[in-house]
Amino acid sequence: MADVRNADELFKEFKAQSVSEFFKKNAAMLGYTGKIRSLTTIVHEGVTNSLDACEEAGILPEISVWVEELGTEHYRVTMEDNASGIPLEYVPQVFGRMLAGSKAHRNIQSRGQQGIGVSGAVMFSQVTTGKPTSFLTSTGDTHIVKGRVQLDVKRNLGEIVDKEKLHNTSGWRGTVIAHEAKGVLYNKSRYSPYNYLRMTSIANPHARITFIEPDGTRILFERSTTLVPKPPKAIKPHPYGITPDDLLTMASNTDAKKLGAFLEKEFVRISSAKAEEIASLSGVSLAQQPARLSWDDAERVVNAFKATKFFAPPTEGLRPIGGEEIAKSLTSTLSPEFTQTITRAPQTFRGGILFVVEAGLAYGGKAGKGGIEIIRYANRAPLIFDQGGCAITEAVKSVDWKRYGVRDVEKVPLTVFVNIVSTHVPYTSAGKQALAMEEEIHAEVRYALMDCGRALSRFLAGKRKLYERRSKMNTLLKYVPETAAAIAALTGQDAAGVADRLSRIVSERYELVDEDEGDEGEAAPTDTEEDTDEQ
Amino acid sequence: MADVRNADELFKEFKAQSVSEFFKKNAAMLGYTGKIRSLTTIVHEGVTNSLDACEEAGILPEISVWVEELGTEHYRVTMEDNASGIPLEYVPQVFGRMLAGSKAHRNIQSRGQQGIGVSGAVMFSQVTTGKPTSFLTSTGDTHIVKGRVQLDVKRNLGEIVDKEKLHNTSGWRGTVIAHEAKGVLYNKSRYSPYNYLRMTSIANPHARITFIEPDGTRILFERSTTLVPKPPKAIKPHPYGITPDDLLTMASNTDAKKLGAFLEKEFVRISSAKAEEIASLSGVSLAQQPARLSWDDAERVVNAFKATKFFAPPTEGLRPIGGEEIAKSLTSTLSPEFTQTITRAPQTFRGGILFVVEAGLAYGGKAGKGGIEIIRYANRAPLIFDQGGCAITEAVKSVDWKRYGVRDVEKVPLTVFVNIVSTHVPYTSAGKQALAMEEEIHAEVRYALMDCGRALSRFLAGKRKLYERRSKMNTLLKYVPETAAAIAALTGQDAAGVADRLSRIVSERYELVDEDEGDEGEAAPTDTEEDTDEQ
Repeated sequence: MADVRNADELFKEFKAQSVSEFFKKNAAMLGYTGKIRSLTTIVHEGVTNSLDACEEAGILPEISVWVEELGTEHYRVTMEDNASGIPLEYVPQVFGRMLAGSKAHRNIQSRGQQGIGVSGAVMFSQVTTGKPTSFLTSTGDTHIVKGRVQLDVKRNLGEIVDKEKLHNTSGWRGTVIAHEAKGVLYNKSRYSPYNYLRMTSIANPHARITFIEPDGTRILFERSTTLVPKPPKAIKPHPYGITPDDLLTMASNTDAKKLGAFLEKEFVRISSAKAEEIASLSGVSLAQQPARLSWDDAERVVNAFKATKFFAPPTEGLRPIGGEEIAKSLTSTLSPEFTQTITRAPQTFRGGILFVVEAGLAYGGKAGKGGIEIIRYANRAPLIFDQGGCAITEAVKSVDWKRYGVRDVEKVPLTVFVNIVSTHVPYTSAGKQALAMEEEIHAEVRYALMDCGRALSRFLAGKRKLYERRSKMNTLLKYVPETAAAIAALTGQDAAGVADRLSRIVSERYELVDEDEGDEGEAAPTDTEEDTDEQ
Repeated sequence: MADVRNADELFKEFKAQSVSEFFKKNAAMLGYTGKIRSLTTIVHEGVTNSLDACEEAGILPEISVWVEELGTEHYRVTMEDNASGIPLEYVPQVFGRMLAGSKAHRNIQSRGQQGIGVSGAVMFSQVTTGKPTSFLTSTGDTHIVKGRVQLDVKRNLGEIVDKEKLHNTSGWRGTVIAHEAKGVLYNKSRYSPYNYLRMTSIANPHARITFIEPDGTRILFERSTTLVPKPPKAIKPHPYGITPDDLLTMASNTDAKKLGAFLEKEFVRISSAKAEEIASLSGVSLAQQPARLSWDDAERVVNAFKATKFFAPPTEGLRPIGGEEIAKSLTSTLSPEFTQTITRAPQTFRGGILFVVEAGLAYGGKAGKGGIEIIRYANRAPLIFDQGGCAITEAVKSVDWKRYGVRDVEKVPLTVFVNIVSTHVPYTSAGKQALAMEEEIHAEVRYALMDCGRALSRFLAGKRKLYERRSKMNTLLKYVPETAAAIAALTGQDAAGVADRLSRIVSERYELVDEDEGDEGEAAPTDTEEDTDEQ
């Protein structure tokens, strides 16, 4: 084998790269793929950050998004929020450093959770235009910081290119960020910023979002409630959700000096009585120093967790939208004939990561898009890409819709709404557009849909019965003039009067008298919408 | 708003995390999701690395994979290859550091391209069992290094836990790696290591793969060729595939002192005449120092690239499988009635990243799995997960199979084989199981399938004609005994002799005489396989 190359030769080219270099080369993993999707991804990153920031600060969100066309496939996206603002010293990290943030290490519900999103948008902007990203921010104090920020890709660090301090005469608080990007395209498809914001508005009824399109059209997605959702709360882990590795990581970070105190302090649902139980089951002493736990100790403690009964994790830290709000949103955007929603009880996946599934069905009106339309959310952020690879889609497909009265899934005017709320959403990719196939999540989505499906089934059965009754009634009414004429001839009564009475009798028999129209004895209108799924 | 929290309070919790911490928390992005998939992912990472290593070194791969069940949902995966081995000083980086490797910064076709895979498997093993990964490696010199390696997750560094040097008495060269993992499961579904290796073998006919299942069953996927594929070659970028940012990055790394030399040296297809053309189009002097190019210069040079005609990129660096090998593989694994394959001409996506699409169709036999079965590959590595979110799947679905004679896509016994070969595969996720929707790739896959589809169409039309001829013949043959009896009665000939002659006439008319069976005058057997797609 003369051609065989040896290891020393082969390994000469071995090198390390920074996480920014990695994502620059693999921008598709962050959602920067395709002209339309890339533009929407920029908007997605900015808006989810703004909503998270408002929620954490307890502020009612006012968000503006402005997309300008600067040239062929060349756009500027400017986004403003009224959140807490960013202290200057954090600007380089927030905007320019990947994997830096306040959420990844806390067990808290948020739209972003990785600390990649906004710096990804800054990088995409820089890579396509060579320009840093402009920002304005103020925490509401005496000044506003105005500047430009960029990424040092090799070192994964943010750099402020220039900055000035302006007087904050109006007391403005918030952040404005403006990215320029090339090789992107604006349109109004379902993958566009327009639809992204429309879907965001559906799941965030407390947010007011103003959108200015490239042609100057101004669209207001008005809030339907002024109730500020309670800020999500960091939730301590539940013993059922813990692996030995998690336990050791937590043990190396705690300031508790003994295992007993560590367990009681860092977990939910572990009382001192439970801690005793764990100690006796595992054989690991509660007096042991957490930092000195071995893997074997940790494994025994975790096995003891599994053998012990605990209350379910508390759920007050999670913030579902709520069935009523979902129904309101579906009604206002789709004007359906029927809606049904459900917020399921909290469950856990992988042993103990808390999540809640919310679902809704809307039938008729503008619902459905040539068959079942799925609208997916995770922590209220819309998932509009990668639908095919998402556990939610799999769950929707796994439901036997025929059992719920849907005769043709290819044509039914049905919109399926699903929102997953969790402290840790198991995304399949850093682009955060699809959920991994976690069995428990898949099952919960199914149950939620089946629950709503039962109501749909009743509605459709009623609709069919109504349709059949109307058909019968219409048949009978068709003979009214003839019958009335015959009766009139026999009895000498006024034919119109007889017809009127006969029509009322038929209509009353079929319980369809309309207060306004009944007197005129008109046949009930044949609603062409009605048999849409009867084909 | 009494509840509003200010920025200083909110930003106290801001922290950075390492790339290993990120992927530890988001292991689903690396493919560690679900018990079965997690086990297969470990095998996938090891085997792709081994195949790449053999290919680069010009070695005919001999790979062994051994899965042992150590306890409930507790397995050990041991993999051995005969590649170049790893010099000791690189072991911590290869096995324990994410984003370190020899491929990410080179423009070369390889299965791995990120430098995450194997360290991801080491991390998964460590996180589920607390144990480092064992290894043995030798570059074929006087010694073998035996040791254990683990990840320092916080710092994203590999650490050798223990090591010893053994005498290499047999001259063995290669690497053995053994991961233990908990919370995983072995079975024989299409998502299993078994199917993964079977599919690997289909696309790598030069590899011999031995697989030992947990119950001791030994399976040999034998090579069907002993031709060592030529090692892939790093390909210099083509000017059409370059963005201004790429140009500046390359300019800051080159040792050329002038733009002219830089262009000629670092790109393919730029001669000095072409360089002159670019200079005059862009107005950027060829004497300019590459490191001093501004964004504006870079943009003008790239625009000049686009306005200049260049030869297509050279393709000798890419290593497709080849239509003949694909057909051989499909035939040996599926025993189909029909195969058709194609290796398309090289194309580029995003302006200039070179790729080749290969496709194959197999019809009948064991092809198809309740309708069209799609088997996907990227650089010969099987993609068995995330099928729904892959551009290949979209392309297969976009083909109007009815036009190619397929009457029922839900039932047709058809296997579709697609392999994409590229120096940079645009994966949607670090788990490398699905391709992003790059328009050019989508289009090429479609064209490849349509091309094979035309042959399928001819085959199926022939099959139908044959079926119809056979039906007619069978009808005629049914009347032979009666007719023969009548003729015999009229002419006084022997009835059996007349029947025999009549049968031959009918059969010859329909060109279906079988050498062996024709004499017996049997009706041609009705092949029940035949009308599988005629339902």
